Amino acid sequence: MTDSTFVPSRRSLLGGSLAAVAAAGLDGLSRTALAQAASASAPAAAPAAKPLPAFAAWKDGSVMIVHGANALETRRGALGSSVITPADRLYVRNNLPAPDAAILADRDAWVVQVDGVKNPRALTVKELKGMGLETVAMVLQCSGNGRGMFPSKPSGSPWQVGAAGCVLWSGVPVRAVVEALGGPLSGLKYMTGTGGEKLPEGVDPRTLMVERSVPLEAMGDALLAWELNGAPIPLAHGGPLRLIVPGYTGVNNIKYIKRLAFTAEQSEAAIQQHGYRMTALGQKSTNADPSVWEMGVKSWINGPLPDSGALAAGPCVIHGVAFGGLHAVKRVEVSVDDGKTWQEAKLVGPDLGRYAWRQFALAVKLPAGMHTLLSRAEDSKGNRQPELRVENAHGYGNTSWRDHGVKVVVA
Amino acid sequence: MTDSTFVPSRRSLLGGSLAAVAAAGLDGLSRTALAQAASASAPAAAPAAKPLPAFAAWKDGSVMIVHGANALETRRGALGSSVITPADRLYVRNNLPAPDAAILADRDAWVVQVDGVKNPRALTVKELKGMGLETVAMVLQCSGNGRGMFPSKPSGSPWQVGAAGCVLWSGVPVRAVVEALGGPLSGLKYMTGTGGEKLPEGVDPRTLMVERSVPLEAMGDALLAWELNGAPIPLAHGGPLRLIVPGYTGVNNIKYIKRLAFTAEQSEAAIQQHGYRMTALGQKSTNADPSVWEMGVKSWINGPLPDSGALAAGPCVIHGVAFGGLHAVKRVEVSVDDGKTWQEAKLVGPDLGRYAWRQFALAVKLPAGMHTLLSRAEDSKGNRQPELRVENAHGYGNTSWRDHGVKVVVA
Repeated sequence: MTDSTFVPSRRSLLGGSLAAVAAAGLDGLSRTALAQAASASAPAAAPAAKPLPAFAAWKDGSVMIVHGANALETRRGALGSSVITPADRLYVRNNLPAPDAAILADRDAWVVQVDGVKNPRALTVKELKGMGLETVAMVLQCSGNGRGMFPSKPSGSPWQVGAAGCVLWSGVPVRAVVEALGGPLSGLKYMTGTGGEKLPEGVDPRTLMVERSVPLEAMGDALLAWELNGAPIPLAHGGPLRLIVPGYTGVNNIKYIKRLAFTAEQSEAAIQQHGYRMTALGQKSTNADPSVWEMGVKSWINGPLPDSGALAAGPCVIHGVAFGGLHAVKRVEVSVDDGKTWQEAKLVGPDLGRYAWRQFALAVKLPAGMHTLLSRAEDSKGNRQPELRVENAHGYGNTSWRDHGVKVVVA
Repeated sequence: MTDSTFVPSRRSLLGGSLAAVAAAGLDGLSRTALAQAASASAPAAAPAAKPLPAFAAWKDGSVMIVHGANALETRRGALGSSVITPADRLYVRNNLPAPDAAILADRDAWVVQVDGVKNPRALTVKELKGMGLETVAMVLQCSGNGRGMFPSKPSGSPWQVGAAGCVLWSGVPVRAVVEALGGPLSGLKYMTGTGGEKLPEGVDPRTLMVERSVPLEAMGDALLAWELNGAPIPLAHGGPLRLIVPGYTGVNNIKYIKRLAFTAEQSEAAIQQHGYRMTALGQKSTNADPSVWEMGVKSWINGPLPDSGALAAGPCVIHGVAFGGLHAVKRVEVSVDDGKTWQEAKLVGPDLGRYAWRQFALAVKLPAGMHTLLSRAEDSKGNRQPELRVENAHGYGNTSWRDHGVKVVVA
């Protein structure tokens, strides 16, 4: 399997609403309409409908936007309202082509080397499974989610809202592993994970390797996970073993993890030293720029959307998702008049913990006309979702409530 | 699409662990091994590996036991440890062949007639979406789950533990719909749902129709749902619209619901009058027998299992699921010595509310030898999972902790 091989998705013929689309003979038409609607706030960026890459061919192709062989986004209207994002709708972003699927042949045999502890050693997944079990629900979000809303058009995938999902991971707490290996060495400041992607020969590994360091305190709720949403982690999402760092952006959650080290310094890999930094517009990134680590408070509306069909005047439920990164969401306000007035929305559905998103809902009556719907969230520490994005060279960390608004027309 | 058409699942080639199986060329072998292991507590009942029926061809075929075209069970080892059961691993039980997939062509246009309220009327899904939004996590479990453990071998699918899953449903609260229609008429005692399956001509509909009544108080947390686990409900699970009655067995959660009525009497359909009753062994069912409604307190172990591979002596995490039907689970105890002694397990992972199951985990050290692992749960009202099943003619309601034990061998 190579990452540049595209195959059509069988799901596009058989799965759920897809069966309906196939039955109605609307496949091409509806994909185009969805693609247009999903990028309604940036119509010029409507992506061409590319097929799914082979390693993600099991995804529901009708709801994914294919930016590239290693960059798949979930359409805004497909994020649903049931808290959890199913694996076949979850975005994919790999910095390198995924390893060969043969690494899943014997998942329990996968080995991770643990260093920076009193008794460093290699552990198999089978051994990890005997050391503890925990499940965490968390928002997995690409550092560049919302990049497509930057007028500066930074390079990289022009994600709208769908480089994010809320998912459940099961595995062993990193704490339990560290304790079993005698505890951490003293004076270490970072938890560093190294991905198992295959690197080309003859190249300095530091230029390409996926190795990221996060502050040591992120270890607290971190997992070495083998399960995603109740099933073994698919290759596209980092199986057989992924480092999960709740509250931190996607890149910090190392796929195919082959080494977990507690270190005094941050990784020397380019992806750490220069990549994923909040760099001023027009500047080159250096390791003096802040690293992209914790996520900020954010919310957005998933319905109604411009593609929800013609809205009739009358009762309407505005709904969406809100999360606080490291802290639970406390409240969400919604505006139906472009931010002039705000009403508090209700948080609905089960609370899956502070790293998960909450759904919000507000029943309104919308009169005929065009309406700009906005949402803004506040976390349990009083941090508020900002009105404006922080401009930066690579389009990271867009939490602007202004950017995330949607315009709907009521007939 | 007819329910008797079987097609091979593409998932068996591409999905998650399946990719590994395909890569290793072990497909046939591993299916046989899994089938044997999954029925380790009743080895004689190992089902032949049949392909998935067409309307469920999108399921992960490697983890489903196909009892028949309308009866698919999840293998015990595939229920996972992440609280939620993904749709492609969720069991299927239909009492009639599913309607044609064309009913999904325009989901928002599906109509349900609501009766037994002050202002009875037909409502489209689109209208329902304007009336409210709620999400509930709940255990969906076939009334006959565990039937395969009855020595009396009642007719019907010989389910082990996998005619159950924990899933999220989104939709409008039935309460909100009733309020919008002026409230319920007085003196009514039941909530009655009618399925939209197509019935053959010239037959008294009452003999075949899927129409079930539940006590009126079940309305409290009931939903008219259009979403399962974050995606539109697939045909196999009742889309475009399903009545969700949390805490009640699967059959009471009416698929393709076309009528929701508040009634003075229970439905006259055979499935209500004679079907799904707790009837004494050797007797014919009558409507004097108790109806199969609320679920009882239950738990079982999902790992380690006889098919977890050779267990090495030493640390091991025993894990499983526990639920209380209408009430939250309070605690779970585990025995590793066939019930002689018990230890309290830890409840792990997020709490999704009283209708969901909780995962439990207990770290133990198992010495070499054969071990019988058991679990038993207690709910917040003090109801305890019983040691023994209640014998009955049709094999309903098996909550016996004795029956649900597993035997593992440690080398």
